[in-house]
Amino acid sequence: MPADIAAILNHADANLDAARARLFDLLRIQSISAQPDHKEDCHAAAEWVREHLAKSGFSAKICPTAGHPVVLAEYPGPAGYAGPTVLFYGHYDVQPADPLAEWTSPPFDPRLKDGPRGKRIVARGAVDDKGQVMMFLEALRAWHEVGGGIPARIKVLIEGEEEVSSPNLDPFLAANPDALAADFALISDTGMWNVETPALTTRLRGITYMQVTVRCANRDLHSGLFGGSALNPINVLTRVLGEIADDKGHIQLPGFYDGVARVSNAQAAEWDALGFDEKAFLGGVGLAEPAGERGYSALERLWARPTADINGIWGGYTGAGSKTVIAAEASAKISFRLVPGQDPARIAESFQRFVLDRLPKGASASFENFGMTPGIEVNTTTPWIAAARAALAEEYDRQPVMMGCGGSIPVVESLHRILGIDTLLMGFGLDDDAVHGPNEKFELRCFHQGLRSHIRLLGKFATN
Amino acid sequence: MPADIAAILNHADANLDAARARLFDLLRIQSISAQPDHKEDCHAAAEWVREHLAKSGFSAKICPTAGHPVVLAEYPGPAGYAGPTVLFYGHYDVQPADPLAEWTSPPFDPRLKDGPRGKRIVARGAVDDKGQVMMFLEALRAWHEVGGGIPARIKVLIEGEEEVSSPNLDPFLAANPDALAADFALISDTGMWNVETPALTTRLRGITYMQVTVRCANRDLHSGLFGGSALNPINVLTRVLGEIADDKGHIQLPGFYDGVARVSNAQAAEWDALGFDEKAFLGGVGLAEPAGERGYSALERLWARPTADINGIWGGYTGAGSKTVIAAEASAKISFRLVPGQDPARIAESFQRFVLDRLPKGASASFENFGMTPGIEVNTTTPWIAAARAALAEEYDRQPVMMGCGGSIPVVESLHRILGIDTLLMGFGLDDDAVHGPNEKFELRCFHQGLRSHIRLLGKFATN
Repeated sequence: MPADIAAILNHADANLDAARARLFDLLRIQSISAQPDHKEDCHAAAEWVREHLAKSGFSAKICPTAGHPVVLAEYPGPAGYAGPTVLFYGHYDVQPADPLAEWTSPPFDPRLKDGPRGKRIVARGAVDDKGQVMMFLEALRAWHEVGGGIPARIKVLIEGEEEVSSPNLDPFLAANPDALAADFALISDTGMWNVETPALTTRLRGITYMQVTVRCANRDLHSGLFGGSALNPINVLTRVLGEIADDKGHIQLPGFYDGVARVSNAQAAEWDALGFDEKAFLGGVGLAEPAGERGYSALERLWARPTADINGIWGGYTGAGSKTVIAAEASAKISFRLVPGQDPARIAESFQRFVLDRLPKGASASFENFGMTPGIEVNTTTPWIAAARAALAEEYDRQPVMMGCGGSIPVVESLHRILGIDTLLMGFGLDDDAVHGPNEKFELRCFHQGLRSHIRLLGKFATN
Repeated sequence: MPADIAAILNHADANLDAARARLFDLLRIQSISAQPDHKEDCHAAAEWVREHLAKSGFSAKICPTAGHPVVLAEYPGPAGYAGPTVLFYGHYDVQPADPLAEWTSPPFDPRLKDGPRGKRIVARGAVDDKGQVMMFLEALRAWHEVGGGIPARIKVLIEGEEEVSSPNLDPFLAANPDALAADFALISDTGMWNVETPALTTRLRGITYMQVTVRCANRDLHSGLFGGSALNPINVLTRVLGEIADDKGHIQLPGFYDGVARVSNAQAAEWDALGFDEKAFLGGVGLAEPAGERGYSALERLWARPTADINGIWGGYTGAGSKTVIAAEASAKISFRLVPGQDPARIAESFQRFVLDRLPKGASASFENFGMTPGIEVNTTTPWIAAARAALAEEYDRQPVMMGCGGSIPVVESLHRILGIDTLLMGFGLDDDAVHGPNEKFELRCFHQGLRSHIRLLGKFATN
């Protein structure tokens, strides 16, 4: 006896402000997983999510890990339920908020602001991933409050280390195969094609994230007294990293492109038909010219080609004015976006070899690895992909786009490898949401229609 | 009626601890000229120096500038004095103390510690330049207290912006030619050959100090969503700066070596005879291999060849763990040590052109110039050089070495250009003093014998 979808949707519409206010409560928690002094905040966010699920009729608990805890919850579904078991995955942790000075309102004091597409929610985590998680949790709540129960068997797994490459998630999955057993996973951490056109994401890039530190002298030196005799680690580091790519944007690590296939002509044609306007995409962030590898279309470069981006660099004197110093060491963080066929561990090794091969005598280098996951392609012929296409088509009155995503959602690969399940990626972010940057936002309209789409999708699984 | 030198020296020996304690008072003042929040400390250091000079019979005053103030003091000399007027120059400002974590005691809490050469003074500014200034000021004080007056006409100019390239000194010199008129300048801001062998420095490198900022997008971007399409300013900056020097350490700026002459065979032979042990010099700071240009001796590279050292670099995420960001901008500080014949302004222009020529479309760069001064060679045939040689030979019982210095003392060039006077560089630092680095120190023995050498030198100028 599934409730009338229209009634649930009406309830969600009428209570949108309350749902938005609950999201604000979650956004106020500074659950920055990368920073040890926010450990308690991560725990508080987990507890907040657990309580929300408990109020929708879930049996929900906090599971400790070697890092930040996981929220695990289960709803049995209606008696006699014969549909698929859905494992919803999301994350309550967020990226650091720096550079703080560039935020127009405090990152952990969420605001509803006016924008060209109506109201928008501005806060760290507004869209990645608290806002997207909350659409689903509020869809569950709406079904619970109006429908007399949720019409499907649902498991929920919300982790707290996605932004630091989920170091403890694989062990957790491996240790809890029964609790997590499901027919497929559902994740809302991706984007729409545009604000009016929904999308499912069927292709994700992987990542290898490295940090390198080059060391020369055992202390900082005066550049006048030692310059011309002492090796300078910043000079060395820039020289080595400056060789990462050639003039055409081709990455120079040995074996970097091993296993990388060019997309099929059919795939390329489908992407071309989307009419992606790279000039507008880049213009929105103040860029006049595309970068990356020559010889590939914009969507190929964003979705189907690997990259090498230096995410941070530091060394020597970085304060005001001048200091004539030769530093003892210099460091950089560098990440490689990977596509299916590339082995993340081999890329990590190749990077280390690339650096070590170029070090002059007298310099040493050490490395840290902050996460590795391969690129992935999702099977698009499953019944849940069909259900999601239908739900989105009803909500938006147009067919969703089947698109790629340049980012990494390592859990997709983990879920497949460890639990043997595929993932349905249905997300509602937009390109200009400033994910990971200052003034991250989520369009209220996207939150609202995303919530409604999840209500519709849950309805598709009802079997009696 | 000059006092007996031996009596003055005895007085200085007996009061060494009090002189050292006064130096500690000055070292406690955090006169970091580069950091605006230490403006008041700079003023306090100037006032401290003024008072010290006043107590030795000087008419001393604080002169405001557009930046930190200058201390200007004058002593007329004995009635009927017919010797040279000496203009002593020094600076009361110090370098920033970071990285603070590497100091074994607080940088502005001076300590007397045991070392392999006896007691040493450990503090920021211990040797550069507070300790060296105080040797001269304490020599004046000793003459004043024992000798019934200082036996020469002395002017003292102590500025507070040497560590930020003295932006306001040239205007001050130009505006006060009469007050500063002298036969020669005396500066203690250089080193000895070793702890037992005094030195006069007759050759200094100049400097051009630049900061460059590369900008791409107008905000930080997610490296997954934008990687492969968006230009990364850290990638651009490392690529450009990585080309500053070739495999042989030859600097690639167009016209960089214009006007650079190889030192004469005679000069090279003199330096070779010093038996400089580069392996030991570098080994003392943990370096196993010399860097710099191939094909030149160590002392040529340190004293007579120009350099390019990146003094600081920063951009993107530099905190703990990982953040998958493409930064909006990245910056570096880079300084070029220059030798006589190079034009610092042309080097600055050449660097800007070098960067701009290498920027990919869509990136922009802006520059700041933190100071320029040419390299310089001092005339070694003056009577004051002869007087200093004699004073040092008496104190150390051996002839001083005539050496070069890889560092810059821009005032030497300014004094010559603006006031038309040469400079006598008599300093007492050692290579391992950690100038500009953590745990900067000054050997108590060097302070003591330097003070005595200044007492002797003052005695050489007595004319009745």
